[in-house]
Amino acid sequence: MATVTNGRHLFNEIPEGFPTPGKTTIYDESQTISLEDVPLNGGFLIKVLALSIDPYMRHKMRATNTKSFTPAFELGKPLYNHGVGVVLRSELDGIKAGDHVYGLLSFEQYILQPNADGIEIIKNDENISWSSYVGAAGMPGQTAFVAWKEFSKAKKGETVFVSTAAGAVGSVVVQIAKSQGLKVIASAGSEEKIKFLKEIGADVAFNYKTTDTAEVLAKEGPIDIYWDNVGGKTLEDVIDAANDYIRIIACGAISSYNTTDNYGIKNWGLFFVKRVSINGFVVFDLLPKYREEFFNTIPKMIAQGEIKFLEDRKVGLDKVGEAIYEVQSGTNHGKSVIIVADS
Amino acid sequence: MATVTNGRHLFNEIPEGFPTPGKTTIYDESQTISLEDVPLNGGFLIKVLALSIDPYMRHKMRATNTKSFTPAFELGKPLYNHGVGVVLRSELDGIKAGDHVYGLLSFEQYILQPNADGIEIIKNDENISWSSYVGAAGMPGQTAFVAWKEFSKAKKGETVFVSTAAGAVGSVVVQIAKSQGLKVIASAGSEEKIKFLKEIGADVAFNYKTTDTAEVLAKEGPIDIYWDNVGGKTLEDVIDAANDYIRIIACGAISSYNTTDNYGIKNWGLFFVKRVSINGFVVFDLLPKYREEFFNTIPKMIAQGEIKFLEDRKVGLDKVGEAIYEVQSGTNHGKSVIIVADS
Repeated sequence: MATVTNGRHLFNEIPEGFPTPGKTTIYDESQTISLEDVPLNGGFLIKVLALSIDPYMRHKMRATNTKSFTPAFELGKPLYNHGVGVVLRSELDGIKAGDHVYGLLSFEQYILQPNADGIEIIKNDENISWSSYVGAAGMPGQTAFVAWKEFSKAKKGETVFVSTAAGAVGSVVVQIAKSQGLKVIASAGSEEKIKFLKEIGADVAFNYKTTDTAEVLAKEGPIDIYWDNVGGKTLEDVIDAANDYIRIIACGAISSYNTTDNYGIKNWGLFFVKRVSINGFVVFDLLPKYREEFFNTIPKMIAQGEIKFLEDRKVGLDKVGEAIYEVQSGTNHGKSVIIVADS
Repeated sequence: MATVTNGRHLFNEIPEGFPTPGKTTIYDESQTISLEDVPLNGGFLIKVLALSIDPYMRHKMRATNTKSFTPAFELGKPLYNHGVGVVLRSELDGIKAGDHVYGLLSFEQYILQPNADGIEIIKNDENISWSSYVGAAGMPGQTAFVAWKEFSKAKKGETVFVSTAAGAVGSVVVQIAKSQGLKVIASAGSEEKIKFLKEIGADVAFNYKTTDTAEVLAKEGPIDIYWDNVGGKTLEDVIDAANDYIRIIACGAISSYNTTDNYGIKNWGLFFVKRVSINGFVVFDLLPKYREEFFNTIPKMIAQGEIKFLEDRKVGLDKVGEAIYEVQSGTNHGKSVIIVADS
């Protein structure tokens, strides 16, 4: 009964401010597993290939007794998030060795999965990379797709502003908007990201750290649609530069995740003056409505090069803490993915 | 050719902060008119009966070169707003002496109206008071009716919070919500208003000047629908006390009209967490869609006592400045109406 190490990445401490690698989360190699012999008890054994690191994970690093749209991580247990794996052995009908699966996966090298709840088999007829399924073809891409469908009311010729536009969600929004004939203004936090935004078709791309958002919007607006991943001063600037009937899609609020001293927005008096609409959403609410259309559309667009994306790949479960920090601080370059195994 | 004085109330000066009676606006008796002989030039002559004083008028007291949903008042010219009058003479087809008319009327005792643009004849089959047509049966009532229809998605048993609930708009919202089986929390700024709110069926009515809004909402919420007439700290308190999927209807922002130092809202990070929706609107956008239903519904409810309202009646066009100040400072008691003539 040969055993191998089953490395895991655990939630260790609720952070104040930014999460600290090796403190907020820790890599653990204390467990072993026998891949051939471990009892499946009617379930199946997954070898993890790729795991997603997303901004919203910070929201899960809180006390378990505070209710929200997503449960808190449990201290001492592995983190979990969307990932892709390959099935090594199975006792479950409908799942067999060799299948590739997608779902919320525990941050371990090998997972004993008791049932298929929340797990789906990926056929990948388009033959795109497995890691695409935690990016543009997975939850972040779905986030962009479903809310754009539901809330944007986009019309050709309108102007959309996308914040954190080089990220996993934003970059899909940019490319969907371009494919529908909108003028796209995109912001990100480094020159490398700005270069990428221009490559994927943004009409205006600017570095919000070196260029004043309000000035860009005043010049290039007014704004008909705003994809908000940040909140705060940027949101206030957009409301000032809004066209009447602006649709603001509130997808995230990265500028609030790692601070307790949020910026106060003062121009709410314009909500009725400009007939502002704001819709906050969580992808899981809308996914059932658009899931089929998403999988019929986006993987094909990726295969055909119509949707491009950057990946920030880190190899090894021990790199999770570092990746989380970079996503929170915006120092990642593209969709953050942990490559746990190649195949 | 007997002439009579044609008193007018003029816009005199753009205010900073609250409008000042006799300074921001002034009453003028320099003009006379001959009711029998004045040439109509194909139009008609209106004797004004009642004029509405509304919070949004403050928004019109600005420089004419700042664009918004409603034009600015012109300095030196009469104010105008919704009103009811009776036709004295007419040369226009479809309008005859004795007709009662409703529309945006100039703040004069007598108006030479060149055409019927924006003027409608009121039949008043329900025989409600003429001044109702500048209140619950007019623009303020329409404001409540159309946005509730469009945005509330109200379900029986849900909880709505209405700010400035004793006002012309808020009191109609309270009564529509009660008629649909919602729990209504209502706030206003005096004990007399609270008494009225209880009379019209509010389940919880509180004086926001003496009771902490956040505490009331924490106890009586969570809030499913918020009718926002104020903005600012109250809006922030509501977002904190919001149920998931709250619908916020942004109707006005009285707490911002007379200050340049607005309160900064810091909890925009909850927009996506709680799937907040906010819709700002202006009644004129939605009225065409709901006008017929409104006039088939509300005047009847008023006649049958199902919609009650308070009126703060001041007699005489010279009282306009005072009425405007009171509406801005919240010291009016009920819908503010200027009675220019009894019949």
